[in-house]
Amino acid sequence: MQPIPTAEGWHVLHLFYRVEPAARAKLPSLQKDFLSLIQSARKQKDFQLFTVSMVGHKADIGFMALSPDLTALQQFEKRLSALFGSAGVAPVYSYLSMTEKSEYTTTDEEFARQLEDQEKLKPGSADFEARMSEFRARMEKYLQHRLHPVLPPWPVFCFYPMSKRRAAGQNWYQLDFAARKKLMEGHARVGRKYSGKILQLITGSTGLDGWEWGVTLLAHDLLEIKQIVYEMRFDEVSASYADFGDFYIGIQLPAEELLRSV
Amino acid sequence: MQPIPTAEGWHVLHLFYRVEPAARAKLPSLQKDFLSLIQSARKQKDFQLFTVSMVGHKADIGFMALSPDLTALQQFEKRLSALFGSAGVAPVYSYLSMTEKSEYTTTDEEFARQLEDQEKLKPGSADFEARMSEFRARMEKYLQHRLHPVLPPWPVFCFYPMSKRRAAGQNWYQLDFAARKKLMEGHARVGRKYSGKILQLITGSTGLDGWEWGVTLLAHDLLEIKQIVYEMRFDEVSASYADFGDFYIGIQLPAEELLRSV
Amino acid sequence: MQPIPTAEGWHVLHLFYRVEPAARAKLPSLQKDFLSLIQSARKQKDFQLFTVSMVGHKADIGFMALSPDLTALQQFEKRLSALFGSAGVAPVYSYLSMTEKSEYTTTDEEFARQLEDQEKLKPGSADFEARMSEFRARMEKYLQHRLHPVLPPWPVFCFYPMSKRRAAGQNWYQLDFAARKKLMEGHARVGRKYSGKILQLITGSTGLDGWEWGVTLLAHDLLEIKQIVYEMRFDEVSASYADFGDFYIGIQLPAEELLRSV
Amino acid sequence: MQPIPTAEGWHVLHLFYRVEPAARAKLPSLQKDFLSLIQSARKQKDFQLFTVSMVGHKADIGFMALSPDLTALQQFEKRLSALFGSAGVAPVYSYLSMTEKSEYTTTDEEFARQLEDQEKLKPGSADFEARMSEFRARMEKYLQHRLHPVLPPWPVFCFYPMSKRRAAGQNWYQLDFAARKKLMEGHARVGRKYSGKILQLITGSTGLDGWEWGVTLLAHDLLEIKQIVYEMRFDEVSASYADFGDFYIGIQLPAEELLRSV
Amino acid sequence: MQPIPTAEGWHVLHLFYRVEPAARAKLPSLQKDFLSLIQSARKQKDFQLFTVSMVGHKADIGFMALSPDLTALQQFEKRLSALFGSAGVAPVYSYLSMTEKSEYTTTDEEFARQLEDQEKLKPGSADFEARMSEFRARMEKYLQHRLHPVLPPWPVFCFYPMSKRRAAGQNWYQLDFAARKKLMEGHARVGRKYSGKILQLITGSTGLDGWEWGVTLLAHDLLEIKQIVYEMRFDEVSASYADFGDFYIGIQLPAEELLRSV
Repeated sequence: MQPIPTAEGWHVLHLFYRVEPAARAKLPSLQKDFLSLIQSARKQKDFQLFTVSMVGHKADIGFMALSPDLTALQQFEKRLSALFGSAGVAPVYSYLSMTEKSEYTTTDEEFARQLEDQEKLKPGSADFEARMSEFRARMEKYLQHRLHPVLPPWPVFCFYPMSKRRAAGQNWYQLDFAARKKLMEGHARVGRKYSGKILQLITGSTGLDGWEWGVTLLAHDLLEIKQIVYEMRFDEVSASYADFGDFYIGIQLPAEELLRSV
Repeated sequence: MQPIPTAEGWHVLHLFYRVEPAARAKLPSLQKDFLSLIQSARKQKDFQLFTVSMVGHKADIGFMALSPDLTALQQFEKRLSALFGSAGVAPVYSYLSMTEKSEYTTTDEEFARQLEDQEKLKPGSADFEARMSEFRARMEKYLQHRLHPVLPPWPVFCFYPMSKRRAAGQNWYQLDFAARKKLMEGHARVGRKYSGKILQLITGSTGLDGWEWGVTLLAHDLLEIKQIVYEMRFDEVSASYADFGDFYIGIQLPAEELLRSV
Repeated sequence: MQPIPTAEGWHVLHLFYRVEPAARAKLPSLQKDFLSLIQSARKQKDFQLFTVSMVGHKADIGFMALSPDLTALQQFEKRLSALFGSAGVAPVYSYLSMTEKSEYTTTDEEFARQLEDQEKLKPGSADFEARMSEFRARMEKYLQHRLHPVLPPWPVFCFYPMSKRRAAGQNWYQLDFAARKKLMEGHARVGRKYSGKILQLITGSTGLDGWEWGVTLLAHDLLEIKQIVYEMRFDEVSASYADFGDFYIGIQLPAEELLRSV
Repeated sequence: MQPIPTAEGWHVLHLFYRVEPAARAKLPSLQKDFLSLIQSARKQKDFQLFTVSMVGHKADIGFMALSPDLTALQQFEKRLSALFGSAGVAPVYSYLSMTEKSEYTTTDEEFARQLEDQEKLKPGSADFEARMSEFRARMEKYLQHRLHPVLPPWPVFCFYPMSKRRAAGQNWYQLDFAARKKLMEGHARVGRKYSGKILQLITGSTGLDGWEWGVTLLAHDLLEIKQIVYEMRFDEVSASYADFGDFYIGIQLPAEELLRSV
Repeated sequence: MQPIPTAEGWHVLHLFYRVEPAARAKLPSLQKDFLSLIQSARKQKDFQLFTVSMVGHKADIGFMALSPDLTALQQFEKRLSALFGSAGVAPVYSYLSMTEKSEYTTTDEEFARQLEDQEKLKPGSADFEARMSEFRARMEKYLQHRLHPVLPPWPVFCFYPMSKRRAAGQNWYQLDFAARKKLMEGHARVGRKYSGKILQLITGSTGLDGWEWGVTLLAHDLLEIKQIVYEMRFDEVSASYADFGDFYIGIQLPAEELLRSV
């Protein structure tokens, strides 16, 4: 099969499997082929793979795979399902999305105006240029995180899909850009309060799967997940404009330990 | 069984199958009968068949079949399910629709009036007639694409069903024809921006299946799918009046490669 | 079991079955018992049975059975499921309803008034009485079609259930009788345009199954089904007050050909 | 296990089972153990059990069991499922509720006031006291029917769950008691029209199962079920404030005939 | 696997299983391993486990497990599912939440102000300080119950998940804190009426599972469950702002008796 590259960012596939009741005894026999499949996937260029031991009855084993090549991602998924299926580990849910830039970030122009208006810095001055250059570096780093994320091995994993509402009186898509940008800035402020405690990755899925975005959160304590999502629910963006799918919680583990953990 | 022809356009059947966990080992044994079934289907008059290797857990194998004869389509489906079923490949979702004209296209009268009013061309003049003739040819070509589409082998495949809302305050079916036509023209403008990147086919299914239309998109890059559907969501037709079903993404492949790809 | 007759009309049971993947090879072995079950059902007084080869993955085999006796209908269903089950043909959906009069037809009084007011015919005159007698015969025939329908062997079959809305601002059950009658007359006008192309049977199921009515349509061309349901959707009765269940499409076939067709 | 009695009324458990396709041949072998289980259940104090042969694909066999002891009810259910399960008869739906008084019945005070105001009877007079005494007896009988129902062996059985709405503009739980009482009296008037034709039992399930009430209807003709539920739908209590679950229709049969009937 | 502690309270996992039809005969063979799994779970620090024999077809066996360590909880769940799965006892539903403080309790400042304003007690006086100290002890006890509950072995068990609405006109998350606090106080007053009859534990699950809270109730009589949930439904917090999931009812039993009870 030919590779299917994309012009920007990576394809993302969340995969959840359940161990069929009678299948648990067969898991150890999969270990060697499972690890070899994982290794060969990770050898591909920019292919990232996170392995998760899920909590509760929704799923037992979870993966988050990222790749610039849609074919590579799909082939990994089908081989994994083939291997798992041979031992009674069945697919239960998957989610396809893509990493993407935020459309609501501060622009160079907006930041330059802030420097002039609020800090009285003169365009062309050394201070102004230093601040601009620092701003551009920060935005570039943020952009890279959004398009080509590197995720830490924090143990608590959370995934949920979401959409913006289009109901009468609560229609996100009828707001103009400025109104949406302002609402999203308030939302981002809540997110920043959890910096260092919560790693958040938002990926776009409009036209790709059943909701418009996928949200992946990593933390050290499940309480942080509960607190950030609860706090954000009072934020206008969530309170009036967000619909949420189901929440998938798991424990991030090295692939070597995964099958033993379920 | 007797053929069941239709007075206009083709019947369309989207078919999605899942390879049962224990069935993957049996796929190679199906290859010969599968290809022979595909070939005999394609030999029928105006019968078109597209084969897709699906991404994610919703389905593994997808088809889009078109035929002027409902019986031919149904018989292809049942034979395919019989063949697949013998090896543990199970049906998961199907969608029945028909190709159809758009009811909102520019009429000859509207175009003639534009030529007179906006371009000051005089009916009967050589320029006027040349422009009218060119217009009619373009509309005829568009109509043929709608009723008898020829789809390119672009690799990225997307299918989703949709309906127009009939909610209080968001009721498409209470708008008059002119209002609907105007809204659809805005929608079409977004579509034209993706010309050459996205091939879009809209088929009607009111009274035939669970939603009112099926939308099939082809592209070279999954990003284009995400972008066009996202951009259209801000368009009034989608923002206020559209409900969407689930999105099915796959990779278009020649039939010969299909079973090996899952 | 004792018969359970009804005071008016017939009980109606729509039955849909799916052929399990591994079961197709067993279908020929059912043929003899299947035909004998069909024949003995049809021998019962006023028991009608229509057999349908379904399109798509929702179902493979469909039936519409009508009987004045609820017990006869239920016993036919259980025997059919027992026979089918032995070969892996499983029930997927059924729908219970009853034939019923329309409550919104023109009354004798209304028609008499029309003759007087619009056509200036004098009650008691020969013309008046001839027209009244003709009207009564037409209504009696319509009533008989509603309560004791005789359906033609047209090949395209469509079934869907529907309810009237009780939402705030779109509440059918809060309209008075005159308003509902007027709306239903507009609806009926659309239906009459398809006379000879579409055979429509509406059966009542409030209190009997998950929706308030079942609609069965027969046609020669699937396009007619799509057109009538689409056109009616703009009618106020559908636009504001109707919710629809799923649509089941099939091909009406003699029982002898049914098992071979799937 | 210890009995779990209740301070008032009986626990009610509706149980529905489906005969798996391959299981029908095993049903006769269950007959002896099935009847012995039924008999021992019915020997328990105030334990009532109704057996139903269901119509359609939702279920094949239905039960309605009532007991003052929750443990007795649960143990009957688990033993029945164990027996059925051994032969491939699987549980498909159950509903837990309790018999309860109506909170909207006419009080002694209200009736006394009616006698004084409308009939000009003087409190303490022989006529007044006779009427009061007759009223109290009628209410006591009604209360006993609600709390400790005795159901007749009428053949047509209907069960459905329902809730009252809490939507903006259609919120039952924001009406005051007098408004709710008045609405319920209109509802009851419709019910009384079907006296002798329909036996209705309303049991409460707020906090116990997925809806707030269960409704069980018995009749001699399925048409009566359809008519009463349809007529009530125009009543304000249903038109604006009621949501309905699925409707389960069956034929009440003696336990001895049950397994043979499906 | 490493423990995953939490900064406050305990993780809570409700687990529900169904005994597959053919599996009941195998239950006795699980007894020894089942009890040993339960015992080793309970030996872990602050690990609590409640065992429930469920009523109805939703589930047969239920558990409520609490632990300060997420890993311990998840490992208990997977081992239980492995053991149960080997005998055909399958997972049907689970719910993940965490114990949490109420955010709407009376603060020290509020209580001090009440003492001054309503009871005319002077800050610093012996009476005032005695009342404050008593208040703080009561709140501390309440907080401990919320974060580290000790549940009594009352036989009637009820679990249901719930969320607050974010609909236009019924949006809990757009109310300010004071309005929410006032509404919750009314809600709590209803709860206190059932003191001694109903033990209620509310755990938070925003971001963790499909609803925002889990509610666990214990009682001696199923009627008390029905009454408290029904009465609360008229309370503004429930009437306008609450959506409820499904209700799971069971009988709390010692682990030793559990497998024999289903």
